[in-house]
Amino acid sequence: MASQSNDNENERYETVQCGQLYTLNYRCYIRDVQTKAIVSPFHDIPLVNQQYTSENATDVVYNMVVEVPRWTNAKMEINKKLKMNPIVQDVKSGKPRFVHNVFPYHGYLWNYGALPQTWEDPNHVDEDTKTTGDNDPLDVCEIGTALHATGSIVPVKIVGVLGLIDEGETDWKLIGIDVRDKLASQINNIDDVEKHLPGLLDATRSWFKYYKVPTGKPPNKFALNEQYANREFAQRVINETQKYWENLTNGQTKVDDKDCSIANATLNNDRTIKKEDGDKLVEGDEKYHTEPARFDSSVHHVAYVPK
Amino acid sequence: MASQSNDNENERYETVQCGQLYTLNYRCYIRDVQTKAIVSPFHDIPLVNQQYTSENATDVVYNMVVEVPRWTNAKMEINKKLKMNPIVQDVKSGKPRFVHNVFPYHGYLWNYGALPQTWEDPNHVDEDTKTTGDNDPLDVCEIGTALHATGSIVPVKIVGVLGLIDEGETDWKLIGIDVRDKLASQINNIDDVEKHLPGLLDATRSWFKYYKVPTGKPPNKFALNEQYANREFAQRVINETQKYWENLTNGQTKVDDKDCSIANATLNNDRTIKKEDGDKLVEGDEKYHTEPARFDSSVHHVAYVPK
Repeated sequence: MASQSNDNENERYETVQCGQLYTLNYRCYIRDVQTKAIVSPFHDIPLVNQQYTSENATDVVYNMVVEVPRWTNAKMEINKKLKMNPIVQDVKSGKPRFVHNVFPYHGYLWNYGALPQTWEDPNHVDEDTKTTGDNDPLDVCEIGTALHATGSIVPVKIVGVLGLIDEGETDWKLIGIDVRDKLASQINNIDDVEKHLPGLLDATRSWFKYYKVPTGKPPNKFALNEQYANREFAQRVINETQKYWENLTNGQTKVDDKDCSIANATLNNDRTIKKEDGDKLVEGDEKYHTEPARFDSSVHHVAYVPK
Repeated sequence: MASQSNDNENERYETVQCGQLYTLNYRCYIRDVQTKAIVSPFHDIPLVNQQYTSENATDVVYNMVVEVPRWTNAKMEINKKLKMNPIVQDVKSGKPRFVHNVFPYHGYLWNYGALPQTWEDPNHVDEDTKTTGDNDPLDVCEIGTALHATGSIVPVKIVGVLGLIDEGETDWKLIGIDVRDKLASQINNIDDVEKHLPGLLDATRSWFKYYKVPTGKPPNKFALNEQYANREFAQRVINETQKYWENLTNGQTKVDDKDCSIANATLNNDRTIKKEDGDKLVEGDEKYHTEPARFDSSVHHVAYVPK
């Protein structure tokens, strides 16, 4: 395993990597720098970043867990099934999944990740999208200037949301910006994004509409007449999915442990595990390889989608 | 130094790297695999790829020297001044030059490089562009699927050309495709590009129009009413610039050796150097570093240009 501290609030968390990048046994765990305990990025990292929230006073600042750095296309994601929810590469037909580069984009357009302590409940039909939740934490597109590595915990302000319906499931895409970014003070609602980053919102919608077309699927649909909703709407989505997550972890909403692990290090409930048990998980995994695995050159292909 | 063979015809050439990537002392020399002589990618690599030209019979296939791989933005280029014209990183304000990532593009849109044994003569006013040549070999945008490393020699067919006027100089941009690409047999003239790679030609023009705007320069202009010229036109541009190169190397066109080295390994003229002298150049350079230099994070910034 290899540990490294990433850009994050107060150096509060660091990553611990196991296995080999671009293989199915790659694992990126998150560890608390102070307690040295492995924590779950789904359940243990607080949704609200207290440090930046109090500095900004009027605005809530959230912690975002970065899964896919901008301009990369290895589909890294928080794994719901594995204990302590390490970030792993998603699987497609038994192989590590890479998202197609849909012309003119290279990989993801933003740093992409999730808000901890939120959950899009698959038992709940959303009143705006008329579909059920996709069973994942809320996704965030972080539109700041810096590239953030997988496993970074970034303080973001959320300024709007796009109502993606991905293969028939509700999959809100929050639009956020690292509060440390030089543009952050000027981007406070969804209209500011178009003003300062012209074209990014249209490109983002187009990206999500077509990203699965090269795999043979139809273009995705959107709620809200394909329009972005503003900051206040996004706030309601966060509040709602936070409640779904609370019900998930307090046992009110039942899930099969095989489908969704609610093991954690800090919630002090019946699924809280001891530090030693977290350490054992990491020790039981394959040793970290410094060299990433070679991948097929098709990962670099460009897909042209008729629009 | 580190040598590696790249994808090329018959493994005829390999690269020899000196110094450290992303520093001003990085050098990528080209070496003949058979004779082990350092060769100039400007003067020694034949313009026409004989192997693929005879296989294709009706169509001439050219050798392209790759400078900038697709999706990268370190401005690597054949250096005209240095003996044997190694590929180095261009300099801007005393530092290695990185081209801005103009939204929505990441780095270069294609593998970018040059045709050997061609030269856009700065003494000659082009009748179509009404401006003088930019004093460089002809540039190629290779639109195939594969990523090609810096220093690769790729067999390309040329299907059209864009008449860029870059800061007042004629700078033709040939559109070519690796003849080994799966699409190559279907792309034989400029109209085929739009058919099979919809949007790429418009994006390419936009890329060249705006790529220097983030540095404070005005958008670039184009000859031929901003339209692409077809394969036959491109062929004439190649023929013409090949003659300019011949006049450069046979001494008919005089240049200061400080501005443009015509040292070579194979032309058998008064500037042909011995193999030992080529070897000494490499030995005199800094040893190759396996680790590239760290660069400023601003290299990854995205520039939004109002259009």
